[in-house]
Amino acid sequence: MSDYTETQNNWLSDDDLETTRGRLPIVYVNAIPVRTDSLGVVTHIGLLLRIGPDGGANREIVAGRVLYGERVRDAVLRHLEKDLGPLAMPRIPTSPQPFTVIEYFPNPDISGFHDPRQHAVGLAYVVPIEGDCEPSQDALDLVWLQPDEVMSPTVAAELSPGHLKVVRRALAHVGCLP
Amino acid sequence: MSDYTETQNNWLSDDDLETTRGRLPIVYVNAIPVRTDSLGVVTHIGLLLRIGPDGGANREIVAGRVLYGERVRDAVLRHLEKDLGPLAMPRIPTSPQPFTVIEYFPNPDISGFHDPRQHAVGLAYVVPIEGDCEPSQDALDLVWLQPDEVMSPTVAAELSPGHLKVVRRALAHVGCLP
Amino acid sequence: MSDYTETQNNWLSDDDLETTRGRLPIVYVNAIPVRTDSLGVVTHIGLLLRIGPDGGANREIVAGRVLYGERVRDAVLRHLEKDLGPLAMPRIPTSPQPFTVIEYFPNPDISGFHDPRQHAVGLAYVVPIEGDCEPSQDALDLVWLQPDEVMSPTVAAELSPGHLKVVRRALAHVGCLP
Amino acid sequence: MSDYTETQNNWLSDDDLETTRGRLPIVYVNAIPVRTDSLGVVTHIGLLLRIGPDGGANREIVAGRVLYGERVRDAVLRHLEKDLGPLAMPRIPTSPQPFTVIEYFPNPDISGFHDPRQHAVGLAYVVPIEGDCEPSQDALDLVWLQPDEVMSPTVAAELSPGHLKVVRRALAHVGCLP
Repeated sequence: MSDYTETQNNWLSDDDLETTRGRLPIVYVNAIPVRTDSLGVVTHIGLLLRIGPDGGANREIVAGRVLYGERVRDAVLRHLEKDLGPLAMPRIPTSPQPFTVIEYFPNPDISGFHDPRQHAVGLAYVVPIEGDCEPSQDALDLVWLQPDEVMSPTVAAELSPGHLKVVRRALAHVGCLP
Repeated sequence: MSDYTETQNNWLSDDDLETTRGRLPIVYVNAIPVRTDSLGVVTHIGLLLRIGPDGGANREIVAGRVLYGERVRDAVLRHLEKDLGPLAMPRIPTSPQPFTVIEYFPNPDISGFHDPRQHAVGLAYVVPIEGDCEPSQDALDLVWLQPDEVMSPTVAAELSPGHLKVVRRALAHVGCLP
Repeated sequence: MSDYTETQNNWLSDDDLETTRGRLPIVYVNAIPVRTDSLGVVTHIGLLLRIGPDGGANREIVAGRVLYGERVRDAVLRHLEKDLGPLAMPRIPTSPQPFTVIEYFPNPDISGFHDPRQHAVGLAYVVPIEGDCEPSQDALDLVWLQPDEVMSPTVAAELSPGHLKVVRRALAHVGCLP
Repeated sequence: MSDYTETQNNWLSDDDLETTRGRLPIVYVNAIPVRTDSLGVVTHIGLLLRIGPDGGANREIVAGRVLYGERVRDAVLRHLEKDLGPLAMPRIPTSPQPFTVIEYFPNPDISGFHDPRQHAVGLAYVVPIEGDCEPSQDALDLVWLQPDEVMSPTVAAELSPGHLKVVRRALAHVGCLP
């Protein structure tokens, strides 16, 4: 299954993408959806709930590829709308500077972030969400959790080790790491 | 004239403030109000228009002291609402990390930022404004200018050299410096 | 005891400082000394060891006031040399942007950072140390710990809750939070 | 000519790279070499001098691809050593957070940064250089210029419009934009 439905001549077919994924780092965006109060304090983090290949529940942040010809901020908006629905009203940050860069490798020892499919370089942003969310695509649900709930052992265990680390860095960046 | 109307026992009187200003760095916030499109791209910068002591027009960013017991984000909100009115709906950033720190000194040679009254350490934030603005207090007007208009010689000449530099750094940070 | 030995007319006496501390936020710098490898990866964090008023061992990061007329980067260098000795060769960051801002209040509920003496606004920087350290002043020792050692329960218990949170944010910023 | 001499099975041949460049964003690093004083203030910016296809002199910052399996910081070090020589002793930043992200497109209207060959996403870092530089490869020379010299019309005219904007953003980030 393709991670985008649109097609265009200068984009890669799924086969070509698979081949290229073994040869070149792929540009990704990671977005951590948050709710804030009127002072900008993060009150909740949004996590997607998906059923994994083993039938268990997995929690995830929003992540996906940057397409050829697409700006990073277009990719952030596209992936957020894909996962949270068209009425989410995300407030994309004004600065292109990500709060961190996550490097996923097929070899889990290089950076501590593992992706068996590819070498991905993920630019990570915290994105306040002001509208109504309707999880779409293959996401079952979106849950909004307080910072200390996200860091609880139960929730942490349902995040992949990589996504958990991204969430921790995000909470540290916004000053809410418990 | 006081830069705040409220009084509280543990705040400084104007006299004490004057004395202390000669002895201790004062914590300031600098806020650059912006309008963005739905992708977070800065389309306009908001500048206040005030009549200076010499009767000439001065353009300014939003700036002011952090009070005793007040969080930085409370100070950013308070000064924005004071200058842009209560319906401005500023989106205070989620992270306490300023995009830059501006150091104003009575001696203009130390940092290139000059304030004859005091040594001030200003934490600077870019703040998207989503509501309606009604310039209040002593501001005559608020104008929204495109990035290249702000950098035009005419407008640049109406900003103090310090505020012009803060605006330039802000535009660089959001990727809009012409 | 004064936190600086030099005196100058325009600085505050200890008495005046005490009075002012109850009325105005005080500008602080927080510095996290680190050792890095040739790629800039943080391999060790430096923590000071002091004997507390109760005779127990406390671990601390480097912290102190910014003086009147002093640039933030001068204050970072001064406090690092005071605590690590004159041969530490700290690499002060090129950008004035701190990785976070820590707000300490006499009321512990406002920000989660508590300082019974004052309201302090701390600009926090990670500073690579390239030289030899000779802990001076009232610090007993300086220990270099790996990121996962710092986060171990034993070491974490010897840091104040505030300093532990600053160290966690620093590790998240440099991509080394376990 | 390849931009790397090493070969490995999972890297792209030059032909494959050309094909892929038309289909996928390529991950780049941009490094701005600087000299600093002992307080971290940037005193000089390093620009490479190359002879362009038209025989004219071009000034450039350090830039290049991130290879498959390579960490971003490895790529920053590799490109700096390739252009400044093996004794440059660059101080790679501790944080993976770039000060900006530059997006180059074959279509010059999308971002204002133009690269006819490819869609590149460049992570930009300011890197203090402490050693001796011997420009190697196809760079004729390396010149160290003060911030206001770099912004002079003569020098600015010898930088590509894209590199000039990256240098401006870097100077703004380190607080040295004139």
